Amino acid sequence: MRCALPTPHRPLWVSGPVATVVRVKQTTRGALIVFEGGDGAGKSTQVAALTRALRESGATVTCTREPGGTPLAESVRSLVLDPAHAPVDAETEALLFASARADHVARLIRPALQRGEVVVCDRFVDSSVAYQGAGRGLGVERVLQLNEWALRGLVPDLTVVLDVDQDTAEARRGLRGLAADRMESEARAFHDAVNATFRRLAERAPERYLVLDAAQPPERIAELVLDRVRCVVPVRDEVAG
Amino acid sequence: MRCALPTPHRPLWVSGPVATVVRVKQTTRGALIVFEGGDGAGKSTQVAALTRALRESGATVTCTREPGGTPLAESVRSLVLDPAHAPVDAETEALLFASARADHVARLIRPALQRGEVVVCDRFVDSSVAYQGAGRGLGVERVLQLNEWALRGLVPDLTVVLDVDQDTAEARRGLRGLAADRMESEARAFHDAVNATFRRLAERAPERYLVLDAAQPPERIAELVLDRVRCVVPVRDEVAG
Repeated sequence: MRCALPTPHRPLWVSGPVATVVRVKQTTRGALIVFEGGDGAGKSTQVAALTRALRESGATVTCTREPGGTPLAESVRSLVLDPAHAPVDAETEALLFASARADHVARLIRPALQRGEVVVCDRFVDSSVAYQGAGRGLGVERVLQLNEWALRGLVPDLTVVLDVDQDTAEARRGLRGLAADRMESEARAFHDAVNATFRRLAERAPERYLVLDAAQPPERIAELVLDRVRCVVPVRDEVAG
Repeated sequence: MRCALPTPHRPLWVSGPVATVVRVKQTTRGALIVFEGGDGAGKSTQVAALTRALRESGATVTCTREPGGTPLAESVRSLVLDPAHAPVDAETEALLFASARADHVARLIRPALQRGEVVVCDRFVDSSVAYQGAGRGLGVERVLQLNEWALRGLVPDLTVVLDVDQDTAEARRGLRGLAADRMESEARAFHDAVNATFRRLAERAPERYLVLDAAQPPERIAELVLDRVRCVVPVRDEVAG
């Protein structure tokens, strides 16, 4: 279900006014837009670009991330990623991420959606399914079922999967100069299982997913994302540049 | 399934040697003994008395508590009980307690049982079922199912329920001079639902439960507990005083 709207003429993360903007109508029901993909796929760049484009169009946007997004959930994130607690059992990890998500949904995401806002989130439930369900072998369906405790029926309106090959991801992580945390030091086979799971989840519900090759230039990815977001976020007006 | 062994002649929490001791045979499979009951039921007194009696009998005892018992689980406990995070959504709370339990079981309880030790635990899964399942209305069966993530088949060998009426519990909490934390300030109806659930869980599996009136003298309760523990913990020898 793609929109036939034209693509914008200029990159959308350029500061200041852009040529083509999306005017967003505020409704009583907002939209949840999620970015998923392996580490180094470029999610944070795209989250920032979409948030800026939507705000320039007049939308009220809540930009958030997982694990985290609320004080309680950020504390849980710190616990899970703290090397002092490693190795955390796979089941414990899945429960902790679901706990953080439950607080995030109950206190931040659902209230924002009820106010009619657009919520843009860096990682969400599919990361749990891919990392704990497939990567750590707990099972895709089991982790989906567990996460119903956190979601209680909430489904993202659009999930953008930035599909990244491992050479690109590793090069990007190197360029960013990040010390490998526990997650990032996992074996390549783990990351392959994770990426394959993101793609399979997208195949199960293509009307709610957009899978993009993360090796494309960031400007091009942002254009494709915004095109698809127009199908999700109520559009009031379009101004040609 | 009660043992026909004689009761000890003297209270077992008296310091120093006691008249009747239980000599425990170390096996490759230990025993998990849990104390449950509302706040003010006297659990910590009984946990300490049983631990001392078993150690005096030669057993290696791991004495622990929930939520908590491991560094990660104690951190989760602090998060849940921190008034700064109140009010925590019921689902989030259930997930956090299950997370703490998963770490506690994986890193402390299961390894101790595999070494043949006796584990004595102040609160366990039934507290989640009673407080979150019944008290907060999430459902007894749902909370039991969630906790299979933490337990993975582990079932206590004996759960002692200290059944306390609310007047006794409130008087004891007052005597202890405790400031009411968030849990303790809940309404009386909540505590009634909790206590009724402990009793119902015991009725479902009487062979694994011992329900005692917590209004009895602590010495008498300790005697009754130790009587029943003899059925669970392998007894090598008995020494009459």
